[in-house]
Amino acid sequence: MLTRYLQPHIAKMAGYVPGEQPRDGGFIKLNTNENPYPPSPQVKAALAQAVGDRLRLYPDPMATELCKTAAQLHGVEREMVLAGNGSDDLLTIVTRAFVGPGDLAASASPSYLLYTTLVALQDGRIVTIPYKPDWTLDLGRLKTPGLKLVYLANPDSPSGTALGREAISDLAAMLVCPLIVDEAYADFADPCCHAVPLLAAHHNVIVTRSFSKGYGLAGIRLGYLIGRPEIVAQLIKVKDSYNCDMLSQVAGVAALCDQAYLAETRAKILATRSRLTGALRSLGYIVTDSQSNFVWATGGPPARATFERLKSRKVLVRLMCYPGYPDGLRISVGTDADIDRLLELLSQMD
Amino acid sequence: MLTRYLQPHIAKMAGYVPGEQPRDGGFIKLNTNENPYPPSPQVKAALAQAVGDRLRLYPDPMATELCKTAAQLHGVEREMVLAGNGSDDLLTIVTRAFVGPGDLAASASPSYLLYTTLVALQDGRIVTIPYKPDWTLDLGRLKTPGLKLVYLANPDSPSGTALGREAISDLAAMLVCPLIVDEAYADFADPCCHAVPLLAAHHNVIVTRSFSKGYGLAGIRLGYLIGRPEIVAQLIKVKDSYNCDMLSQVAGVAALCDQAYLAETRAKILATRSRLTGALRSLGYIVTDSQSNFVWATGGPPARATFERLKSRKVLVRLMCYPGYPDGLRISVGTDADIDRLLELLSQMD
Repeated sequence: MLTRYLQPHIAKMAGYVPGEQPRDGGFIKLNTNENPYPPSPQVKAALAQAVGDRLRLYPDPMATELCKTAAQLHGVEREMVLAGNGSDDLLTIVTRAFVGPGDLAASASPSYLLYTTLVALQDGRIVTIPYKPDWTLDLGRLKTPGLKLVYLANPDSPSGTALGREAISDLAAMLVCPLIVDEAYADFADPCCHAVPLLAAHHNVIVTRSFSKGYGLAGIRLGYLIGRPEIVAQLIKVKDSYNCDMLSQVAGVAALCDQAYLAETRAKILATRSRLTGALRSLGYIVTDSQSNFVWATGGPPARATFERLKSRKVLVRLMCYPGYPDGLRISVGTDADIDRLLELLSQMD
Repeated sequence: MLTRYLQPHIAKMAGYVPGEQPRDGGFIKLNTNENPYPPSPQVKAALAQAVGDRLRLYPDPMATELCKTAAQLHGVEREMVLAGNGSDDLLTIVTRAFVGPGDLAASASPSYLLYTTLVALQDGRIVTIPYKPDWTLDLGRLKTPGLKLVYLANPDSPSGTALGREAISDLAAMLVCPLIVDEAYADFADPCCHAVPLLAAHHNVIVTRSFSKGYGLAGIRLGYLIGRPEIVAQLIKVKDSYNCDMLSQVAGVAALCDQAYLAETRAKILATRSRLTGALRSLGYIVTDSQSNFVWATGGPPARATFERLKSRKVLVRLMCYPGYPDGLRISVGTDADIDRLLELLSQMD
């Protein structure tokens, strides 16, 4: 069997399982935190124009225009920005650069399960630091010697909560190794949680951003990373040469240039999030105050049964079970009509 | 300096340098083997329809439709196909699955330089087996014990030559480790060189295909791999969950379904290749018989000077220098007009 030639740690590991992407339609999809609103009309217009003969050519390997636009938006140097095929690609690149066989990484818990998979793929070890009941971190727990990389999803999933910039600053100051702050959901958070401003003082901070959530472009796979130029220069060695295709680069530039549309859809999502949070609490659920485009609901009727019953009624949420925590439902903030339907079904269950 | 946290083998390695992608127009681009003809009108029509609100959703993580279509085309099971963000992504995935620190891989030489980079990223070692003067391989040289993975570009670059199926079969039979046959250029080769039919008898063969060359879709980043189902199941663990975006999946299906267009552009390119080969030989160059959409020219005036003079006249070819071989020019087969201009300039140089 050829499988005996596999790296043993890969042969024995389980793969990461992404959220369900039903291929038949008809579902209200509240399970993978997609934006319920379409991408900006400017993105669609730019893409429509880019779908042409130039696709025969390779894309710009460094996604120069996109990185320039992102750098300008964040007020950083262009050499501090690296584009990726989704922020998952960037998380992979950073992990490969810093974590080798036997090396130790850390992440808070519960959090994005992919971090564990990425470390396992490198044959590294990961230590998880549980969030405190108020969803802050006991920094003392991160004083583990020998850490090579620390992952922090901020806002976090499934909790939806975010550490403030002071807390991230304290964490960065305490660590000597790189701290990667995964800001996939940052577009929905209070800007005082954003970590990019910390980069001036803390050279070990690396921030990733995604177009999948705030910009409503999960289908195009695009993200970018902001870090010190000397780190970005090294990460370029690890990435695939042409990791970002031509169309996603075009879409990304157009999306970044339409901040008014982002603000508009963000405001709608935040209003719906607030209504959803209140309504779930009225139904008896425990719901954290979310800084994301989803809410984390525990404490209601048994989560698995609720998940199954919702699914049978064509509403898909994410059932998430973390050892040491009650099973919960992570519910993406959909349109108002989506959420009306969800609440209608939930109010019939107990 | 945070760079001290980098994996040492990454800190010390040089990155892969892709061919030049000039961002200002006006070049006749014969340096990265793009197709001179645009993608199929069916691809453009499918993409135009896909550029819409659905981009807010994640793509199918397994690119099911694409893999089904490719499986049908090659007459293999659907479970034998894996899609990637370009065949570079697939080469990365296979390398990560089979090559760990200190492990030994092999490739023929001169060949695609990326193989060396991919092995270096894994902190592995690579042994290169030089092609014989007739561009065949001395299989005895590949009897190195402990090999974990062998790369074979077929057709090869820069030579443009291809081993026949018998030779690949002999190689696969001799090896116990996986043999990855990189068929990025196979659409331009005699079908009797294609390795997929070998999979029935040789379970260690893995074939990669690209949409960048034959299908004229370098800009969308898409490729697929064909291998034994038990190997594909393991490789899925290594790939990013959503490695292929929605638009590339749509484009890929449409491209595979328009084999008539592929045949038509292929025929034009093969006719131009034949004319280019003859004309270069008349100018005194040594040119291998190419099975690809480029030719490899040595033996003319000093290659570097020719490269620079062509570039100053807005014709970009690829200067390639391999130790032990004369410097040469790898020239993509462009349109007839592109090649007329190239030949006009070359005929003025000596």
